[in-house]
Amino acid sequence: MSDLNVRRATADDITAIVAMLADDALGATRESPDDLTPYAAAFREIDGDPRQYLAIAEQEGEIVGTLQLTFIPGLSHKGMTRALIEAVRVSSAARGGGIGSRLIEWAVEEARTRGCGMVQLTTNAARTDAHRFYAKLGFEPTHVGFKRKL
Amino acid sequence: MSDLNVRRATADDITAIVAMLADDALGATRESPDDLTPYAAAFREIDGDPRQYLAIAEQEGEIVGTLQLTFIPGLSHKGMTRALIEAVRVSSAARGGGIGSRLIEWAVEEARTRGCGMVQLTTNAARTDAHRFYAKLGFEPTHVGFKRKL
Repeated sequence: MSDLNVRRATADDITAIVAMLADDALGATRESPDDLTPYAAAFREIDGDPRQYLAIAEQEGEIVGTLQLTFIPGLSHKGMTRALIEAVRVSSAARGGGIGSRLIEWAVEEARTRGCGMVQLTTNAARTDAHRFYAKLGFEPTHVGFKRKL
Repeated sequence: MSDLNVRRATADDITAIVAMLADDALGATRESPDDLTPYAAAFREIDGDPRQYLAIAEQEGEIVGTLQLTFIPGLSHKGMTRALIEAVRVSSAARGGGIGSRLIEWAVEEARTRGCGMVQLTTNAARTDAHRFYAKLGFEPTHVGFKRKL
């Protein structure tokens, strides 16, 4: 497999990230790639927070994936820090090549390096392919994910 | 109902919080209330991060509940900030009096005040009482929560 380079996103990557967020059955209805203003504001919040790592995966000079890692200190589990993974996407042109697995494994290693005792994420109950994907990567579907929109 | 006062936890609350974390079927096996050192270190991390709100609920001068709110900036959903709720506990002496509901409603309002577009949490699949509790509070069980221990 070609080398996959994972690095911290810069403001220049916002267009590519938003395109990946929108290029998805669930994401298409809730993103606005034609107006990047709200994304640029959110990027500044992410980029200024040392507990956020917005990651970009590149292969042969192309952006092929993204995810966001958040490191969350907590008291439970004897003061364990946990890592939360959100907004995982692989570009449609690059799907099926194992990039998603390698990106998640990168995130797990980054979480380990940061001293986390757990990595967690939620996926929509409708994404059954994703459930198999995370189970193969050693994640256990032990929890129910509840959301309330405001 | 008596007034419920929700406030930010201080280092003086660590003992009470850890007692609540340990006083729980799942928590009993993974906490160490006899050695607060790791909790004190984690508390400093939480307390120094403006995106964490470790909350204490008090009623008639007694600590009766706790939860941790984390505000997470993100690009998806047009740059939406989400709030994550973790480590929700009501002291065993105070259970059944609606304190849990009021504490979660406080968290939802705090998330709204901070500009969040969503509040999310996961609960262990074994906590079926908790599933009914969150559904009553307007949370939808739309996701599967995956965890991987490190």
